Amino acid sequence: MISAGCARYGRREGLSAREIFDEALDELFSNCPKLSRADVGALFLGQAFESFEHQANTSAGIANNYGLSGIPTVRLDSVSSSGGSALRAGYLAVVSGEFDVVLCGGVEKMTSFDTPTALEIISMAADRPFEQWNGATLTALNALAASEHMRRFGTTEEQLALVSVKNHENALDNPKAYFRKKVTLEEVLASRKVCTPLKLLDCSPICDGASCIALCRPDLATKYMDTAIDIISSAEASDCDFVFREDLIGFNATRRAAKKALSRAGVEVREVDFAEVHDAFTINEIIAYEDLGLCEQGAGGKLIESGETKIGGSIPVNPSGGLKAKGHPVGSSGIGQAYEVFIQFTGRAAPSRKVKDARLALTHSMGGAGVTAQVHIFKARA
Amino acid sequence: MISAGCARYGRREGLSAREIFDEALDELFSNCPKLSRADVGALFLGQAFESFEHQANTSAGIANNYGLSGIPTVRLDSVSSSGGSALRAGYLAVVSGEFDVVLCGGVEKMTSFDTPTALEIISMAADRPFEQWNGATLTALNALAASEHMRRFGTTEEQLALVSVKNHENALDNPKAYFRKKVTLEEVLASRKVCTPLKLLDCSPICDGASCIALCRPDLATKYMDTAIDIISSAEASDCDFVFREDLIGFNATRRAAKKALSRAGVEVREVDFAEVHDAFTINEIIAYEDLGLCEQGAGGKLIESGETKIGGSIPVNPSGGLKAKGHPVGSSGIGQAYEVFIQFTGRAAPSRKVKDARLALTHSMGGAGVTAQVHIFKARA
Repeated sequence: MISAGCARYGRREGLSAREIFDEALDELFSNCPKLSRADVGALFLGQAFESFEHQANTSAGIANNYGLSGIPTVRLDSVSSSGGSALRAGYLAVVSGEFDVVLCGGVEKMTSFDTPTALEIISMAADRPFEQWNGATLTALNALAASEHMRRFGTTEEQLALVSVKNHENALDNPKAYFRKKVTLEEVLASRKVCTPLKLLDCSPICDGASCIALCRPDLATKYMDTAIDIISSAEASDCDFVFREDLIGFNATRRAAKKALSRAGVEVREVDFAEVHDAFTINEIIAYEDLGLCEQGAGGKLIESGETKIGGSIPVNPSGGLKAKGHPVGSSGIGQAYEVFIQFTGRAAPSRKVKDARLALTHSMGGAGVTAQVHIFKARA
Repeated sequence: MISAGCARYGRREGLSAREIFDEALDELFSNCPKLSRADVGALFLGQAFESFEHQANTSAGIANNYGLSGIPTVRLDSVSSSGGSALRAGYLAVVSGEFDVVLCGGVEKMTSFDTPTALEIISMAADRPFEQWNGATLTALNALAASEHMRRFGTTEEQLALVSVKNHENALDNPKAYFRKKVTLEEVLASRKVCTPLKLLDCSPICDGASCIALCRPDLATKYMDTAIDIISSAEASDCDFVFREDLIGFNATRRAAKKALSRAGVEVREVDFAEVHDAFTINEIIAYEDLGLCEQGAGGKLIESGETKIGGSIPVNPSGGLKAKGHPVGSSGIGQAYEVFIQFTGRAAPSRKVKDARLALTHSMGGAGVTAQVHIFKARA
C-alpha cells in the first residue's frame, strides 16, 4: 500500500458520490507525490447500493471523470464489506501480475433521503425472502445477536456501551470523523432504544463518505514511498444468512477469514499492534474480539471493560473511531480501515490517538449480519 | 474453463434470481461430473441491479443456499458487462494463484415489474447527472449512436434489421433462448418505433436469466475434462460517459479491450472461428464488428449484408442468438457468452447452429453505452 486518501465523513450536502470520492483521490495523490494518474492500472470500487443515487456502474464514471481515462474498473457489492471486497479484488489483481498499480476505493452517498427511506435501502443487506420479508432489518438481526450474547455469556448493556464510549473518544482527534464528540457511559445507556438491547448510541450513523488506497507490486513500492507497507495476508469468507444459523453468538465468516489470514501471515493475533474492526453496532466489536481470537468466546464484554482495547492498551481496536464514531458510509468502510493503517503507519495520526510503534495491523470488514467478511494484515517494512 | 451451465431465458414467473441461478449451477455440475461443490474456491457474480429484487450482497445468498458453504464471494456491477467483469475477476483470481477452481456467474431477475418500472431501473446504467437527468435512457443513447452511424457511413435501417433477422435465426435451435422464432426483414422494419431509428425488434428483451462457468488452474483442467478450454487472453477497458464523447460512431472501451486482448493472445481477429458480441441493440453488433476489427470503421453495415457473420460464413457472430434473441438478463449476459463457447467447443450445439471446427472464439461484453467492456479469447486444446 503506497498511498491512501479519505473524504470527510458526514452529511455532505450538495455533493454526489463522485465528488466525495474525488476528495479522497485528491488526498491520495497528494500523499504520494511520485504517483501520477497515468500510473494507475485499474480501479476496484466498493459501493453497496445503487439506489441512493439511482446510479449503477459507478466506478467507470468516477474513474473517467477524474482523468483515470479508460482504465479497467468495476463496482463491487458485499454490502458493509464492499470496501473489503474491493481491497481484496485489487490485491488479487496485483498478485496476478496484471497490474503494477491499482486503486481500491469505497464510496456511499446516503444522506439524500429521509431516514426511513435510507433504512429501506439499507435493508437490502438482509436476505429478502427470509429476513426482510419478516421485518428483520440489520439492526434487528444484530440486536438478536446481542440478546443471545447477553443470555449466554452475561454480556451487559454497559459493556456494549463502553465500545461506543471508547470509539467516540478515539474519533475526537480524527479530522475526518463524523462525530468528534465524547459520549459518556450514561449518555449511551440513556439514548433512545432502537431495537432492544441496542440504543441509538450503539449504532453507527448513516452518512456520506469515500476512501481510497493505492496498491502496487511489492518490488515497486519503494519507488513511490520510503517506508513501504506490505499487505502480508488477505482472506475472505462467507456464511449463510443469519436466520438459518444455529450459532447466533459469533460470525463464522469472520472466524474463517481471520484464521486463514493469520495462519498465512504466520502471525498470532495478539502480536498485532492494532486492529480496525467492523463495529456498525457495538455488539459487532465485542463479537469481533472473540471471532478474531483477541479473547475467548464470551469474554468480549470483559475485554472492553479491561481497557486493553483503548489506545495505549495492549491491543487498541478502532483507533480511528471505528464505524461507530467516524461514520459508516457502507461501501467505503472496508477501505476506510486500510486508510487508518496508512495514517498510523506513516505517522500522520494526531498524538492523542497515535498507536505507539505500530508496525503490524489487522483490518476486519463484515457484510450483512456476518454474511461476508474479509481480514487483511498489514506490516510496515523495517 | 472446465464447465458451464445456463438457465432457460425468459419470463421465469415465480422464481427468484437465486432459484434461476440454481438451474445454471445444476447444469454446470452435471456437465462436469468430476467437479464437486467442495472443489469450488470462490464465486464471482455479475448482477447489475439490486433493485429488481430489493436484494444486495446477492452472491453470498446464492452460494450458501446451494451448499457452496463459506466460500469467498462478491457481486460485481458494470451493468450490461457485469458478467464480463465477473469472468475477468475470476480469471485474475485463478491467475493470482489464490484458487484452483472458481465459479463466475451472472444473474438478473427482471420481470417482476411492469415494463416502465423495469426501464426506470435499467436507466441506472446511464449517467445520472448528465444522461438520466436529461431523459437519456440506454435506448436513446444507442439510437443516437445509430443515427450518427447512418449519417456518417450510410448505414441503413435494413442493415440494422438484418442483425435481428440473423440472431433470431441462430436462436431457433438454442434450447435456452427466449425467442425461438424467425423474424423477417419486413417484420423488423415494421415493428413499432422505440426510439428512432431503433424499433422494437432492434432491441433485446427484458427477461430473466442466469449463467455460470467454472474456471480452474490450467494445469488442473484435464483432471476435470478431456478437451480443456483455455482462456488465452483477457482484457478490459472503460470510457467516459456517452454524452461527453466526441466520437459517437464507435466505442473506445471495446477498441481498447479488443486491441489488448488480441495482441496478448497473438491472434488476428479474423483467425477467430466465431464471436459472441454485445448486441443489446442491433446497432451494437454492427459497431462491434468495427471496433473488434472484423471490418473497417463504417463497413459494419456491409458486413452484415454480406452474410459472412451468419453461421457458415467466414466469421459467425452470435451463433447463440445473441442478447437480441436469446435474451439479455443484464448481469448474466457476459457469462452467457462464455457458456456458448463451452457449448460450441464441446460439441453440444444443435447441428443447425454448430460452428464447424470451432477452436478459437472471442467474447465481447459491454456495459452502458460503451462505458465498460471486456474481451476474452478462448481456445480449445488440440
